[in-house]
Amino acid sequence: MIIHVTHDAKESEVQTLVENIEAAGFKVHRSDGERRTIIGLIGDTSKVADNDFKKYRIVDGVYRIQAPYKKANRRFHEDDSVIDVGGVKVGGSNFMVCAGPCSVENEDDTVALAKQLKEAGANTLRGGAYKPRTSPYSFQGLGKEGLRILNVAKQETGLPVVSELMGTEHIDDFVEMVDVIQVGARNMQNFDLLKVLGQTNKPVLLKRGMSSTIQEWLMSAEYIMAGGNNNVIFCERGIRTFETATRNTLDIQAVPVIQKESHLPIVVDPSHAAGVRYLIPSMAKSAVTAGANGLQIEVHQDPENAWSDGQQCLTPAEFKDLMQHINLLVEMENKTIEQAPIIQH
Amino acid sequence: MIIHVTHDAKESEVQTLVENIEAAGFKVHRSDGERRTIIGLIGDTSKVADNDFKKYRIVDGVYRIQAPYKKANRRFHEDDSVIDVGGVKVGGSNFMVCAGPCSVENEDDTVALAKQLKEAGANTLRGGAYKPRTSPYSFQGLGKEGLRILNVAKQETGLPVVSELMGTEHIDDFVEMVDVIQVGARNMQNFDLLKVLGQTNKPVLLKRGMSSTIQEWLMSAEYIMAGGNNNVIFCERGIRTFETATRNTLDIQAVPVIQKESHLPIVVDPSHAAGVRYLIPSMAKSAVTAGANGLQIEVHQDPENAWSDGQQCLTPAEFKDLMQHINLLVEMENKTIEQAPIIQH
Amino acid sequence: MIIHVTHDAKESEVQTLVENIEAAGFKVHRSDGERRTIIGLIGDTSKVADNDFKKYRIVDGVYRIQAPYKKANRRFHEDDSVIDVGGVKVGGSNFMVCAGPCSVENEDDTVALAKQLKEAGANTLRGGAYKPRTSPYSFQGLGKEGLRILNVAKQETGLPVVSELMGTEHIDDFVEMVDVIQVGARNMQNFDLLKVLGQTNKPVLLKRGMSSTIQEWLMSAEYIMAGGNNNVIFCERGIRTFETATRNTLDIQAVPVIQKESHLPIVVDPSHAAGVRYLIPSMAKSAVTAGANGLQIEVHQDPENAWSDGQQCLTPAEFKDLMQHINLLVEMENKTIEQAPIIQH
Amino acid sequence: MIIHVTHDAKESEVQTLVENIEAAGFKVHRSDGERRTIIGLIGDTSKVADNDFKKYRIVDGVYRIQAPYKKANRRFHEDDSVIDVGGVKVGGSNFMVCAGPCSVENEDDTVALAKQLKEAGANTLRGGAYKPRTSPYSFQGLGKEGLRILNVAKQETGLPVVSELMGTEHIDDFVEMVDVIQVGARNMQNFDLLKVLGQTNKPVLLKRGMSSTIQEWLMSAEYIMAGGNNNVIFCERGIRTFETATRNTLDIQAVPVIQKESHLPIVVDPSHAAGVRYLIPSMAKSAVTAGANGLQIEVHQDPENAWSDGQQCLTPAEFKDLMQHINLLVEMENKTIEQAPIIQH
Repeated sequence: MIIHVTHDAKESEVQTLVENIEAAGFKVHRSDGERRTIIGLIGDTSKVADNDFKKYRIVDGVYRIQAPYKKANRRFHEDDSVIDVGGVKVGGSNFMVCAGPCSVENEDDTVALAKQLKEAGANTLRGGAYKPRTSPYSFQGLGKEGLRILNVAKQETGLPVVSELMGTEHIDDFVEMVDVIQVGARNMQNFDLLKVLGQTNKPVLLKRGMSSTIQEWLMSAEYIMAGGNNNVIFCERGIRTFETATRNTLDIQAVPVIQKESHLPIVVDPSHAAGVRYLIPSMAKSAVTAGANGLQIEVHQDPENAWSDGQQCLTPAEFKDLMQHINLLVEMENKTIEQAPIIQH
Repeated sequence: MIIHVTHDAKESEVQTLVENIEAAGFKVHRSDGERRTIIGLIGDTSKVADNDFKKYRIVDGVYRIQAPYKKANRRFHEDDSVIDVGGVKVGGSNFMVCAGPCSVENEDDTVALAKQLKEAGANTLRGGAYKPRTSPYSFQGLGKEGLRILNVAKQETGLPVVSELMGTEHIDDFVEMVDVIQVGARNMQNFDLLKVLGQTNKPVLLKRGMSSTIQEWLMSAEYIMAGGNNNVIFCERGIRTFETATRNTLDIQAVPVIQKESHLPIVVDPSHAAGVRYLIPSMAKSAVTAGANGLQIEVHQDPENAWSDGQQCLTPAEFKDLMQHINLLVEMENKTIEQAPIIQH
Repeated sequence: MIIHVTHDAKESEVQTLVENIEAAGFKVHRSDGERRTIIGLIGDTSKVADNDFKKYRIVDGVYRIQAPYKKANRRFHEDDSVIDVGGVKVGGSNFMVCAGPCSVENEDDTVALAKQLKEAGANTLRGGAYKPRTSPYSFQGLGKEGLRILNVAKQETGLPVVSELMGTEHIDDFVEMVDVIQVGARNMQNFDLLKVLGQTNKPVLLKRGMSSTIQEWLMSAEYIMAGGNNNVIFCERGIRTFETATRNTLDIQAVPVIQKESHLPIVVDPSHAAGVRYLIPSMAKSAVTAGANGLQIEVHQDPENAWSDGQQCLTPAEFKDLMQHINLLVEMENKTIEQAPIIQH
Repeated sequence: MIIHVTHDAKESEVQTLVENIEAAGFKVHRSDGERRTIIGLIGDTSKVADNDFKKYRIVDGVYRIQAPYKKANRRFHEDDSVIDVGGVKVGGSNFMVCAGPCSVENEDDTVALAKQLKEAGANTLRGGAYKPRTSPYSFQGLGKEGLRILNVAKQETGLPVVSELMGTEHIDDFVEMVDVIQVGARNMQNFDLLKVLGQTNKPVLLKRGMSSTIQEWLMSAEYIMAGGNNNVIFCERGIRTFETATRNTLDIQAVPVIQKESHLPIVVDPSHAAGVRYLIPSMAKSAVTAGANGLQIEVHQDPENAWSDGQQCLTPAEFKDLMQHINLLVEMENKTIEQAPIIQH
């Protein structure tokens, strides 16, 4: 970390700053230039914040050399992390295909859909039981009953289950009933929730906040890992920009950026980025060739009657078509889609 | 609500759509143009979402006439809402001056500061007990002990207390120990938290999410009000844009926009928008003449040794200077700053 | 076009509005609801702006059904446009591979590089002669000498030449000396320049403005086409967002959106989006599978000594490697890369 | 300027980099830490770009201490610049009130309006003769005839004239016929235009690009000043963000930021930021208390029949009302509004 000192700093002020830095456990490398003094900190700066120094009157710039995240950082963990998701490997050369309805609506449809998805090539099943909705007057999800239904579908197909947890109060149900706990975009910086997830060892699918930088996203993963849970999977789902032709702007560059900075897998959700059906196939293909470790796609048997997000769901037939392209591209990328385990009844 | 039907819609599809709309309790006004059909919905559309119709293949546009929020909407509540905050009125012509440290650090400093703030003209006291921090390695707040200290400061000065609640698990402590529950920017769409707040009758200071539109912000207020709690105060604290010269971009236009759309008060927090000390006085003044119903400003006796956010704190002396300008401008706006009640010991 | 009238509109005001609309040549469809009046315009609304009506006191919403662009609109031109670029077809199933240095530096290097690029599979040559630089103190390009050098390279390789025109004063040189005139992101709404280009029949590569919506981009193409020049190729090169990990955010969704709205080709420039070398290969591949009609990539023989943008250039060897992947993916997309014509000396 | 070298840099590569830096005229301060080498450049770095060094393989960070602008930089020119605009001083404690129609439409209305504006307190007159319009089918301005009409209004009132120049081809007319040449937001980085303006000594009103950072804006002023013309006035007119409730987001913080970084004046245009009439008065007042050096406001005698931007024009009566507040606030800020000189006939 490098600190720029203002022109008008008095020597006594610089001294105080240097002493405080040393008291915090760092070695100091001081360089007095013609115009100004620069102070280098030597030591593990991942545990101090830029603002710990910006608050001094005489500091007008703080530049980080070492990233503020450590456990999520590829520099300290060169190999790709591979995460076991209910018996399906995700990460490295293992590609995740997660599909399912936005909201779970009833048992029969969910089971029937899960069978179609598995046959088409999905290796995990998504489904919303608790739904974050912009309006208090919209359908809020079936709750625990939704989790039960997802488990029936898992029993029938073997597909591990991914579902979103909105608050700490349902953590026990999720640990018991799902294979991957999804953290939604709106909760990416719900730090209380992240801490609770860090206490478990469940895989977490961490969606990127609508306006979160990649660094903030890495820091949210760090929250979970700091608690002891290393099973984090990033999910890019579009960011908010000035463009209104699409619901969000899919930040496809985030895929190789995350893979350079971190050893954790990253999957792409084209459904929430696009917000409209016709963009999904091209964007799903695009994500594979960008190097993503997986996809999350919304599928519904009858999008026009879906209880939520019907406008961005594929039909099972469209999903099956798409998977033919995806299979080819995944193979070209030297990755494989591991099948879900068969459950013995 | 007006729905545009695609060119290639078959009459049977239009019929189905119309029937479904009628089944949902609306009257339909259908207009068949040369090129396309347009369907108008007549009835209370505040409880349906645009996506409830966008999911149909034959729908390529949904335009709202009626806003999707009702209780927060000025159209149904013409007069300004005035909210009682521990004996201090906020809203209409009543101006809130809320000041205090980013984090509560200890009892002596907090009480001493509260006295200075009161004397300088503040009528409410802010202080963080639970802190949302980007890094898991940063100071996370004193927790309940922080709330206790704030209450001691209240006993000494009469200043009602504002503090941030990060999760539903501490709701009882907050209802008991604070006068205004603050919802932070990162939790503006933590819908579980909003619902719990709706069950109380505590005033809520609802900060705008970093990338939340004004409409989403109004919808989050609607969540709280839908539960029965009408005591919501908006707080503009800057939005995230491409500009990096400041921490956030203060959306000063949000003040008159909110006041046109809603009857609820809106205050401005220049500290978090600017992220740097020198901008705060001009921005605080600017907020008053923009018509805001109050200010929230971070003040610390010794910013260079603050445990968090020191770079954006005023000193008590700077705050006192600023208040001289604020008092004049508030008077020019025909508003008054009601003093905090004296507490009888 | 649909116009919402405010609640408090007087009948005489509505009459005046209706008369003015009719005077502008439209048929009016008026619908008086319980709560408000809605006015539909029937006729060609591509030549009126939303603001032509928003300026009325009694208008509080204007919703467009018909897009404000006509010549660029796929609805009026269903088939893909295929543009002849100095003998190379671009558009439909014809894929453009445009490569070359950011700035032209000297004849020998430019010719040598062009030969390598052609051999690796490029079918057009890019090179900057006039350079838009943020700082007045940076290298501003060789000017006309740069165009001359590009032509020497063309004579040697047959590769048609793409170069950026910054102002109307050099239009004659460009018409004579280049095959595709590039309009840079900063000039996308330099309407004087667009009008002059509309007077020529040169192909134009229209880069997207850093913060331009897709609709504004289509309108800029419309400016060129309104003058009579239909040879417009869009180029997505990243938009400005809050994210700073990359120079710009590549809006990969713009590819299928443009292709749905317009019949014109769209190519992708990953170099300017990424601003850093390591992202280019994955993003180039991603663009092909997203359905793009071509790529523009910066290549330099010695990026560390490039006079501009060295940090985002591939070496010829890296470009050659990349082209092996691109060739495969282009074929999978059922597209072909037409070779540049051989020039007879 | 400080350069971070990657971990894996070879000594020979570092040597080459150091030699190249020295060859460019800088002294080098090299510091070899435990983990990596850091290189400091000593000398005038305003004439090198970050990318001049980022292009090296072994460089992974470039941090600027000295700003890349010099003539616009307050550090080298401590006192506020005061610019003479046709006899009216702008800058320091001199406040500019510039008002007028979006487009000049005809002589009678323009002269009559100018008289009303002067009486209400304006000291300069704005009016568009060449109009940048998103659509090629919209009214494009009266051209030179518009400039002639503005001059008639000036003869009648004494008000100096401000009008927008869109391209270099009309520069001579503008130098002859206007007092301040306005550069529109879309041309803020039209570097050819900026260079030509640098050759004149006309005051330039430099509007901020819709998505331009404050640093880029300062660099565009530097372009004009590098040519020898120091008469630059900044104009904040809103930036593009995700928020759609207003046309643009007025970045009110830009006022004190520019005033800290530069000695040049900055005025605020609330009309283009808001895009809607009702926001203008509160935003104009807000700009004054934020410390702006002036205002630019669109006024039209009959907004509903304006040829452009009627939705964001005040009427003369509304402008007169507003000026009563503005006068008070300007006085509180210890500024004065200098009257336009009387022209002797």
